Amino acid sequence: MLTYSFEGITKPLYIHLYQCIREDILSGVLPANSRLPSKRSFAKHLGVSVITVENAYAQLQSEGFLYSLPKKGFFVSPIETRVTQWPETPLPAAEPTVPPALTPAIQLSFASNRTAAENFPFPIWAKLTRETLSEHREELMEPSPAGGLPELRTAIAQHLKQFRNMDVRPEQIIVGAGTEYLYSLLIQLLGFDKVYAVENPGYQKIPRIYQSHGVEVQYISLDAGGMSIKQLEEKGADVAHISPSHHYPTGMVTPIGRRYELLAWAAQQPSRYIIEDDYDSEFRLSGKPIPTLQSIDQSGKVIYMNTFTKTLSSTIRISYMVLPRPLLAQFDRTLGFYACTVSNFEQHTLARFIAEGHFERHINRMRNRYRLIRDGLLSALHHSDLHAQVVQISGQDSGLHFLLKLDTQLSDQELLKKAEQAQLRLSCLSQYYLTEEDEPPQHILLINYSGLAPEEIPQAVNLLERCLK
Amino acid sequence: MLTYSFEGITKPLYIHLYQCIREDILSGVLPANSRLPSKRSFAKHLGVSVITVENAYAQLQSEGFLYSLPKKGFFVSPIETRVTQWPETPLPAAEPTVPPALTPAIQLSFASNRTAAENFPFPIWAKLTRETLSEHREELMEPSPAGGLPELRTAIAQHLKQFRNMDVRPEQIIVGAGTEYLYSLLIQLLGFDKVYAVENPGYQKIPRIYQSHGVEVQYISLDAGGMSIKQLEEKGADVAHISPSHHYPTGMVTPIGRRYELLAWAAQQPSRYIIEDDYDSEFRLSGKPIPTLQSIDQSGKVIYMNTFTKTLSSTIRISYMVLPRPLLAQFDRTLGFYACTVSNFEQHTLARFIAEGHFERHINRMRNRYRLIRDGLLSALHHSDLHAQVVQISGQDSGLHFLLKLDTQLSDQELLKKAEQAQLRLSCLSQYYLTEEDEPPQHILLINYSGLAPEEIPQAVNLLERCLK
Repeated sequence: MLTYSFEGITKPLYIHLYQCIREDILSGVLPANSRLPSKRSFAKHLGVSVITVENAYAQLQSEGFLYSLPKKGFFVSPIETRVTQWPETPLPAAEPTVPPALTPAIQLSFASNRTAAENFPFPIWAKLTRETLSEHREELMEPSPAGGLPELRTAIAQHLKQFRNMDVRPEQIIVGAGTEYLYSLLIQLLGFDKVYAVENPGYQKIPRIYQSHGVEVQYISLDAGGMSIKQLEEKGADVAHISPSHHYPTGMVTPIGRRYELLAWAAQQPSRYIIEDDYDSEFRLSGKPIPTLQSIDQSGKVIYMNTFTKTLSSTIRISYMVLPRPLLAQFDRTLGFYACTVSNFEQHTLARFIAEGHFERHINRMRNRYRLIRDGLLSALHHSDLHAQVVQISGQDSGLHFLLKLDTQLSDQELLKKAEQAQLRLSCLSQYYLTEEDEPPQHILLINYSGLAPEEIPQAVNLLERCLK
Repeated sequence: MLTYSFEGITKPLYIHLYQCIREDILSGVLPANSRLPSKRSFAKHLGVSVITVENAYAQLQSEGFLYSLPKKGFFVSPIETRVTQWPETPLPAAEPTVPPALTPAIQLSFASNRTAAENFPFPIWAKLTRETLSEHREELMEPSPAGGLPELRTAIAQHLKQFRNMDVRPEQIIVGAGTEYLYSLLIQLLGFDKVYAVENPGYQKIPRIYQSHGVEVQYISLDAGGMSIKQLEEKGADVAHISPSHHYPTGMVTPIGRRYELLAWAAQQPSRYIIEDDYDSEFRLSGKPIPTLQSIDQSGKVIYMNTFTKTLSSTIRISYMVLPRPLLAQFDRTLGFYACTVSNFEQHTLARFIAEGHFERHINRMRNRYRLIRDGLLSALHHSDLHAQVVQISGQDSGLHFLLKLDTQLSDQELLKKAEQAQLRLSCLSQYYLTEEDEPPQHILLINYSGLAPEEIPQAVNLLERCLK
């Protein structure tokens, strides 16, 4: 009879017995269809209780190693373990949490818009989270509708009314874990057979997301008014993805005339839509915010999108879109089965953050802070040796960056390389040209300043000076 | 000269002036290319300051209503506002938060697996959230890698080692906002041109998600061992989506022999993969957990998936997948640009919840609770009048439901209708058959009991008795 030693075994005896038998089955010691000892005789033979053998057999049976025949006992299942082996690909190295040693450490950056930890409203967020977790337990366990919790959607609708003068019903708002995710939902809603048009120059990630979903992307050049309608027509676009209130990176505002042309273009075909990406309209630093395209759309052709990742923190993944009424029923029918991707805990917290006025105060505080940094930076540039090389500064009234055109012999490539050596991270407008079609303008820097602390301004300008010498 | 009244205006004067001029432009009162009064004379005429006119003109210019010519002044932009109108679709009614009045209110349900609020570990979750928000501010503002925070991935890898005996490196783990989202990432990774095979009977949502992404779905019948290899071959499947440790709704465990056959099937073609959906393996109530398919996969063909929405709460959207090594580099290259869809706040909290042992304790507590409910339910069924009608009970050892086969003249349709009238929600195995191909078995109820409180058992059994009378 089969014999296994139980000496020194600290785990449950049935687990040990299960493992021993399993090994013998997999190695072929116990051949297919061979009969195992009866429970009672096996238990006696091994000096364990019948229940130990019973549990081991039960586990082996439930995993399919054994089968049983009534009144005949337990038998080994025939198992074919041979699997063709593919050569193993070496595992890539762990994601570097620090840049590789050869790249000089970056001290300061004009290339990122990360929120500094000190700017996030931690005390109030912590208070609201605490209250949510203690006062809303039942609601926190109720599944959220696909589009998000009614409380949050109502708060966002009110915010859009007050801040953007948009008349939006909470049902039109769809909350999701970041705009990237919402683009994916939109492709599912509008169709994988559609042609998606993106701005060129533009934010590289947007065409990448469309391409990752296997849909056709067309790059549309920008003229003085924004996306060229002629190119939209020529390239057979169905969906135009634009940021009319503040284009990244040029800072361009699509003028009202072009806006109506875009709406007219969309209204010509039932398949046509416009995605209005309003990613940083909160941070216009002069005048009033530019009205949205959505608010003059009478034909239900504009899908408005915005995010809390720019205003609060990129590490809070909450964005939303406003669907035009004609798309609402379609969303409910085709995508309403999805679970909302944002946890109830953060939806509740954010709903209160907005409804109690904290969001508005936070934006005002941040706008003042950004204005301060911008003014400090412009003044420092003006008083630096760089001043003589500054050809033009533009886009300084809105958003979190401006364009700085320089008079220099250096190519953009050389400039970026010198900057890295000076431990300063820069980005150039030319890097945002996504096709070979248009000749990218040279010597225009994108000065993203929201990640900079006011006290870092002198050093940042100093480093920039050094790059251009 | 243009005249506007400023009487009783409480908003900033420049905003009022801007609005008046804008209206006159849009209505045609101010025709295209007409010249506006000079700032100075207009200010004098209106009795406001020059700066008010300046600000109004600047806003109108930045929105494209006006253009300026050097030394000539401001002119009205030509704007074509006519847009073809599509007939407006009526807005669907607001999502009902309570079921419509005609449906009788449901008292009890055997059809859902919602976590009751009292079962969520609120005190410890609140404590960890509070600590995270006060102690980890800097880290909370650092963008998470696409696959999730290293802390969380390390904690999950350790949990998988201890609980599932899986050898997984943290880099292989990809965290996302729910398994539904992860399926979308997987389609992007494996390809839109692949054929995705799902289990029939099975969970309806899975084929819906694939279909929503426009990829081909094939339904594969289950025989006694699970997915039929023959059908996988015949239907040209590339990716098999299965739940080998506990199939929903049949409760079937794929035996070890079929597991090796599935691995052999996958190894035959580079394009073939297996998605192992291990959605509730934590809740096996007898014996040890069934080992994963992933742990015997030597060819890098199994993508393992699991979720915290079943173990913690469906309203916390955190799931993860374990990529086989050969797919890792491809993920980094093609999808590494995505932001992680789970907020840092909850990633940090969950990482600590697992690392400090709370997750294991929570699962043990829940397993005991579910065992108690299951035992109570089985005993109540045994002692009820229903007992005579019970043909078979199966799958009661694992997961959060079992199957109850009844001897009844009622069709499943009639049974469901009677249950709704008795304010009891039921589901039948036949509802999970997704094609016409297989004849669904009748009179088998799915008894999902995790949403039931122990004290509700007598009433639930009582209502069930009533339906069958």
